[in-house]
Amino acid sequence: MSLLTVCNAGVGLMGPLELQSLDTMRQILEVNLFGTIQTIQAFLPEMKAQGQGRILVTGSTGGLHGLPFNEVYCASKFAIEGACESLAVLLQHFNIHVSLIECGPVNTDFLVNLQKVELGDTSLEQLDTHTLGLYEKYLQHCDSVFQNAAQDTEDIVKVFLDAIQSPSPLFRYFTSGVVPPLTQLKITQPDGSQCIRSMSKIIFSSEEK
Amino acid sequence: MSLLTVCNAGVGLMGPLELQSLDTMRQILEVNLFGTIQTIQAFLPEMKAQGQGRILVTGSTGGLHGLPFNEVYCASKFAIEGACESLAVLLQHFNIHVSLIECGPVNTDFLVNLQKVELGDTSLEQLDTHTLGLYEKYLQHCDSVFQNAAQDTEDIVKVFLDAIQSPSPLFRYFTSGVVPPLTQLKITQPDGSQCIRSMSKIIFSSEEK
Repeated sequence: MSLLTVCNAGVGLMGPLELQSLDTMRQILEVNLFGTIQTIQAFLPEMKAQGQGRILVTGSTGGLHGLPFNEVYCASKFAIEGACESLAVLLQHFNIHVSLIECGPVNTDFLVNLQKVELGDTSLEQLDTHTLGLYEKYLQHCDSVFQNAAQDTEDIVKVFLDAIQSPSPLFRYFTSGVVPPLTQLKITQPDGSQCIRSMSKIIFSSEEK
Repeated sequence: MSLLTVCNAGVGLMGPLELQSLDTMRQILEVNLFGTIQTIQAFLPEMKAQGQGRILVTGSTGGLHGLPFNEVYCASKFAIEGACESLAVLLQHFNIHVSLIECGPVNTDFLVNLQKVELGDTSLEQLDTHTLGLYEKYLQHCDSVFQNAAQDTEDIVKVFLDAIQSPSPLFRYFTSGVVPPLTQLKITQPDGSQCIRSMSKIIFSSEEK
């Protein structure tokens, strides 16, 4: 039997950073980062003991480049990238594959569950008008992106199945099939595998062939 | 008077992920991520009001690529990258510059203050021998890197001063002068500025000339 761990939980947080409380920020990290890590921790010893397994984690383009008014959300999604890259370097020595399924906007309840500072919120009264104007613009941009570019969950499931069925899964999968241009600016080796192998060679080189 | 915020606090955490408690993981994020964000939050309204300012944050190569046995540390440093990139996209509209000073190993008390699972720790008795062997190898690698490649704090201070004195600071500075090869695999535009400008254009384009 093949062991498969899928980590998919995630919540959003949108609004000017000045208005975010420490408790709210902690909650986002609790779900998005620690939820993911604790899920992996629960299955890791058994996977290592069996010398096989797959760990699939839902990533986000917000984990690959910053998004204004999403400082804490991006922090949590970047954090997942860091944890997964670190794990992937180690776990290839156990025949355990880590894969990030990097999603853009998807038609789920994400927008419903998203914690967002709404334009009518009284907290916005503390804010300078320039920030408020940019925030309005950002929300419009965001609505239009979700209306025009959001993928259906079935399309995302297909990518998960690709990763699950592949004999040698990549580290990073982009759900739309193309690497978004901003991510391309940051990542020359989009599947991430070369980076992980190089790191392993540097550190554990006496083990490599 | 020019407003300058410097965020430098950070702690490390090293050891097999299976052995990390939730409380320990939370502490690392509390210092490395929330400490940084709260410092920025404290000065942001005044910087915005003055329409100028500089935010300098100590980053780490561990925020740019994963390191085995450093899942939580890398998560926290990646998180800082995400928060700072997000902020930088917005704050260029306020004439506030965000810069990350990306350090490799530095001769500070970092190693003394580092939370590390030591080889004699009883907690390691729960661990499989393969992981233990790789962890020993990692610790040796780490010692040799710090002995052979660690920079002095004076060299780092010079980079901070460069960023402070530059009329148009970059987003990302590498303290050794060269982008580490693994980071190069990930970042084609090493100073990060193009990525930030592109993001801003996409979202706030009606403001751009």
